[in-house]
Amino acid sequence: MIRKEKINYMLIEKSFDDFLGELASSAPVPGGGSVAALSASLASALTEMVANLTIGKKGFEKVEEEMKKISRESSDYRVKFLKDIDKDAEAFTRVMDAFKLPKNTQEEIMKRKKVIQEEFKNAALVPLEVAEDTLKLMELTSKVVEMGNKNAISDGAVAAMMARSAVLGALYNVKINLQSIKDENFINKVLKKVHKIESNVIEEEKKIISNVGL
Amino acid sequence: MIRKEKINYMLIEKSFDDFLGELASSAPVPGGGSVAALSASLASALTEMVANLTIGKKGFEKVEEEMKKISRESSDYRVKFLKDIDKDAEAFTRVMDAFKLPKNTQEEIMKRKKVIQEEFKNAALVPLEVAEDTLKLMELTSKVVEMGNKNAISDGAVAAMMARSAVLGALYNVKINLQSIKDENFINKVLKKVHKIESNVIEEEKKIISNVGL
Repeated sequence: MIRKEKINYMLIEKSFDDFLGELASSAPVPGGGSVAALSASLASALTEMVANLTIGKKGFEKVEEEMKKISRESSDYRVKFLKDIDKDAEAFTRVMDAFKLPKNTQEEIMKRKKVIQEEFKNAALVPLEVAEDTLKLMELTSKVVEMGNKNAISDGAVAAMMARSAVLGALYNVKINLQSIKDENFINKVLKKVHKIESNVIEEEKKIISNVGL
Repeated sequence: MIRKEKINYMLIEKSFDDFLGELASSAPVPGGGSVAALSASLASALTEMVANLTIGKKGFEKVEEEMKKISRESSDYRVKFLKDIDKDAEAFTRVMDAFKLPKNTQEEIMKRKKVIQEEFKNAALVPLEVAEDTLKLMELTSKVVEMGNKNAISDGAVAAMMARSAVLGALYNVKINLQSIKDENFINKVLKKVHKIESNVIEEEKKIISNVGL
């Protein structure tokens, strides 16, 4: 069930050792947004693992087709979130680039302000999407914990933990970017989504954990 | 502040793309225990990053020395937890190897049982140490969130989230291994520690998040 599409981005081709070193440095990227996306990818991989450890096992014939579907879907999420590691770093880089735009004339000043605002909105929307998608992934995690191979139940539990941190971590990155946005309508619309996801993820994690029973 | 000690282990030299693919597969390792250790390393790196983004900044002269100390200490944790990714995988591999020991004579049967029990104990103690050390790391995370550069506050928040998942995720791996251990004295001693860490980590995360204020 392993899909080995090679993704042509930068950060995800690094080794952990190198990535963690760069993360720890005072360089502006990667940061918390990329870590949230990585956490979501780890949650996807663990969900996929539990599904794969259920497929073909005696006593799980009834859920075989469901587990195959979950394995495929969480594999897609895994690859998608891996790409989001770079997407978040890129969004933040674009904010910084916008600040470097020239501001010699009135026109340039107006243009620079506009681009900065656009890039902050993009930098808020990237982690918002990570949070929304991770919440959807958690429905798959919930199913493998409930119906999957009990020998891998602790892996399902860790998946739920990583997904919860991915969602809440991504939302912190949404909220910090909102602080620099002036469009009240945009802020209110996004905040409404943020609060809904926050309460949903806490409920979803509790539900999964109650099924782990360790 | 980046320390570039190259660590000569296996998993951490892989790219994310490869590691996540192996994690997702039905291969027994890596699993949730290694992910918990990785999560702890990510939390360490983000803590270090916030400290590094505070050092040398105007208005933070008073906490300069403290931040330098935190940067060094979280760097050590980052490297330590990276090694734990492999340590956990190795502990689980040793459990599986113990099951493969010969059981032809009474003596062999007894020997095999003894080794299996020893290896399960080791497989419980490795994530227990990860949980204990991550709880200590969270004291550093708490300090950078409280006293560090506010521009990096969302990175501090993500660090707290990743640390919380590392601790609780590691403890699930302790608990699932305890299920195969027969030594009641060992079980009770470990469970007592598990419950204490569980309540401490939830409290510590709440404390940090209340200081984030986003």
